[in-house]
Amino acid sequence: MAKDKTRARPRAETPKGFRDYFGAEVTERTEMLHQIAGVYHAYGFDALETSAVETVEALGKFLPDVDRPNEGVFGWQDEDADWLALRYDLTAPLARVYAQFRNDLPTPYRRYAMGPVWRNEKPGPGRFRQFYQCDADTVGAPSVAADAEICAMLSDTLEVVGIPRGDYQIKVNNRKVLNGVMEVAGVLDPSDPEKFMAERGIVLRAIDKFDRLGDAGVRALLGAGRKDDSGDFTKGAGLSDEQAEIVMGFMFARRDTGAATVARLRELVTGSAVGATGVDELETIAELLDAQGYGPDRIMIDPAVVRGLGYYTGPVYEAELTFEILDEKGRPRQFGSVSGGGRYDDLVKRFTGQEVPATGVSIGVDRLLAALRAKGRMGQKTAQGPVVVTVMDRDRMADYQSIVAELRRAGIRAEVYLGNPKQFGNQLKYADKRNSPVAIIEGGDEKARGVVQIKDLVLGAQIAASASLEEWKDRPSQYEVPRADMVARVKAILAGQA
Amino acid sequence: MAKDKTRARPRAETPKGFRDYFGAEVTERTEMLHQIAGVYHAYGFDALETSAVETVEALGKFLPDVDRPNEGVFGWQDEDADWLALRYDLTAPLARVYAQFRNDLPTPYRRYAMGPVWRNEKPGPGRFRQFYQCDADTVGAPSVAADAEICAMLSDTLEVVGIPRGDYQIKVNNRKVLNGVMEVAGVLDPSDPEKFMAERGIVLRAIDKFDRLGDAGVRALLGAGRKDDSGDFTKGAGLSDEQAEIVMGFMFARRDTGAATVARLRELVTGSAVGATGVDELETIAELLDAQGYGPDRIMIDPAVVRGLGYYTGPVYEAELTFEILDEKGRPRQFGSVSGGGRYDDLVKRFTGQEVPATGVSIGVDRLLAALRAKGRMGQKTAQGPVVVTVMDRDRMADYQSIVAELRRAGIRAEVYLGNPKQFGNQLKYADKRNSPVAIIEGGDEKARGVVQIKDLVLGAQIAASASLEEWKDRPSQYEVPRADMVARVKAILAGQA
Repeated sequence: MAKDKTRARPRAETPKGFRDYFGAEVTERTEMLHQIAGVYHAYGFDALETSAVETVEALGKFLPDVDRPNEGVFGWQDEDADWLALRYDLTAPLARVYAQFRNDLPTPYRRYAMGPVWRNEKPGPGRFRQFYQCDADTVGAPSVAADAEICAMLSDTLEVVGIPRGDYQIKVNNRKVLNGVMEVAGVLDPSDPEKFMAERGIVLRAIDKFDRLGDAGVRALLGAGRKDDSGDFTKGAGLSDEQAEIVMGFMFARRDTGAATVARLRELVTGSAVGATGVDELETIAELLDAQGYGPDRIMIDPAVVRGLGYYTGPVYEAELTFEILDEKGRPRQFGSVSGGGRYDDLVKRFTGQEVPATGVSIGVDRLLAALRAKGRMGQKTAQGPVVVTVMDRDRMADYQSIVAELRRAGIRAEVYLGNPKQFGNQLKYADKRNSPVAIIEGGDEKARGVVQIKDLVLGAQIAASASLEEWKDRPSQYEVPRADMVARVKAILAGQA
Repeated sequence: MAKDKTRARPRAETPKGFRDYFGAEVTERTEMLHQIAGVYHAYGFDALETSAVETVEALGKFLPDVDRPNEGVFGWQDEDADWLALRYDLTAPLARVYAQFRNDLPTPYRRYAMGPVWRNEKPGPGRFRQFYQCDADTVGAPSVAADAEICAMLSDTLEVVGIPRGDYQIKVNNRKVLNGVMEVAGVLDPSDPEKFMAERGIVLRAIDKFDRLGDAGVRALLGAGRKDDSGDFTKGAGLSDEQAEIVMGFMFARRDTGAATVARLRELVTGSAVGATGVDELETIAELLDAQGYGPDRIMIDPAVVRGLGYYTGPVYEAELTFEILDEKGRPRQFGSVSGGGRYDDLVKRFTGQEVPATGVSIGVDRLLAALRAKGRMGQKTAQGPVVVTVMDRDRMADYQSIVAELRRAGIRAEVYLGNPKQFGNQLKYADKRNSPVAIIEGGDEKARGVVQIKDLVLGAQIAASASLEEWKDRPSQYEVPRADMVARVKAILAGQA
């Protein structure tokens, strides 16, 4: 108790790694989610909202040798002894839902989901422990037509939210082709799938890091290992130079057209059955997308894309924004990935024992919003505040409420100042802080004469910032209008500001 | 490890008290939240989205004498020893945000927030441990004009989401009037506010339970106590019959007009300063609302409404739906409360030491949706599935994709069947499960002749359910149309179904 006394007041802080979102940050995200849901819905996907809380066993993060299974997740023990946790993505809950309701759900089950996910990870600059995902998945469709459809939908989605064609690139690859290359390189033995598994994991992660590590870094990881700038050593896959050369050849197999890339890949996996299947699948995807007009300017086959996650079993895909932004040090850099996904045929099997084919994509909504803001394509209109009706006479609150009601009925966002009205300056400061476009003033004198004063706050700010006295005289930012003309005049001012 | 072996597969279940929401359940809620946000926004409220996770000390649920502070909340200890928890409402996070950012936020700060909250309570039928709230609060406005505004906004909101005037009633009261009545009854001593606090808590909760317990039950709780049907005894406030009579008189002080109720309340609190202030505030609220046309058919003063929460300090308000629905046993009953709120001037003070006036409302979105569904005002159009393009020839997937792309470009929700196409019957069963309005069929023969078959599945179902053979002949539910006419014909069918 003594300890509690010394800090009687709680700290007004979010927990470390969490943050609050204000005003336009919220409404712009809501609007983007609405746009994305519109595309997903048009493609026949149905909404699903699972609870934020799952059992740890359903999430699949239970590590039997640690006391608390909260590695990477926020977990706690429920009163009836079950360990519960916040979901860390939207895919694990989908697998649970499909397993739970598979007899009632249609097959294939196309579903979309959007909402926050939580990661119990070390927060960093721009890295939060709660963030939004927006996923679409098709469960129960073995055909790669489902993968092609998701790539096409991803392309449509990016354009609908405001990324024009040319500013993004969707890249498709296939894990089976990579496995074929591994087989050719001698680190995959079809008769013993477990053999060389660790090596293949290292190769996968090395390829995934090419953008950051470059040719030499990846080759080091494919071989003996790599020492980073801090001196830390990462163990390599132990491939010989010849083996590494085969893998590097795969990474650079991209050609100008899908057909040419497919032909090159077919050469590279000669002799591997799984590799041949993978190339066939890529060819089918490319043909389907070509037939619908999604050419390589939008969706291309790129063997350098592998996606880091272990659970993908076939096609993988990724959307990159190709324009440059300035990083925190002012240097131009490509914006990079905003979305990724692929086929995972084993996640439902955890629950049911039966393999259920599934493929899906996840869009990083917060990253996409950051991209649009970096390009100046967001944040103007949505941040506008309400018209503020000032209070000149505290006893005439009902009059002021009637004014705002009239404005609102005309579709104009408006409010009465509800702070202490004694100092008029505070009311205008408030309007300024709210980013209000217009203030309305009706003192006793105006009331008696049947007029109101309308202050154009946007123009006023412009005049204050730039204009000379003569210009100011020509363009007053405050008008007196008959009370009956108020709504029309406010509408005209707002239209002029837009 | 042995134990783990015996249950190798995880159970596909939500944790107890949690559930999933499918399709229209999600989109209808999203649409309602969008409508509510529209009204809040028009009234000048800004969006705020706080993180789902707060420190337990910020939430204010820390009980120093229990080992884990998870009484009522889901809590866990973070790695750096802080206790964290899921928010249990949207008001506590608002108080934390206002305290944290008070120098940057406008004052008054009007904000709205919507999202899930979590309660670690025993779940029951229709009672879940995660549910949605949708709040609007004004922080830093001492005037009861802020309370009146929120009542008016609540009225507008209910009508916008589809509750017509006459089907709802907003009731306003004031805790200060109740305190005045307590003073008159002798259970409040202005010179010692702590005295009789427990008794006043019992009185408050007794009044709040009038709907359920009736006159005799409330009187028992005001007096010695009450034994319920199960035999459990609840201690009463120990009021004498005379004291109880004063409280009961307050509960039944409602008159036909706000002015008459105010006059009656003024009689009842004669001699109490706090009571007089409370009556003045109610009078101001009634006048402001009357002046804006919100008469007692929409918002009335009702002294029987007290709201159970301890933290309210002034006006309290509640919205009830007045129509009857059938309960689970088929008996008609009033739907009841869907929203409530009031003024709480002490929540921010916990953090800053300074009293900050605040008032706000919370709408139980899931209850409101249930009400609209019970009245049959929801769930028709939103539940419609996509047009399903069937797959007659597995090798012509690109053709089928072109058909859906064409339908989507015309604004029609559509998809290709992506399951195993071998059995055509399964494709129609799938369309049925998806609640599809139309199926498109293009076999090799149709392709050669440049036509498609269009199946009107809604009409087909009606015919199957009701029509005689003759009618069926007159109104076939399947049409053959030239491929070029497909979109126009599908549009016409959808328009006819609407």
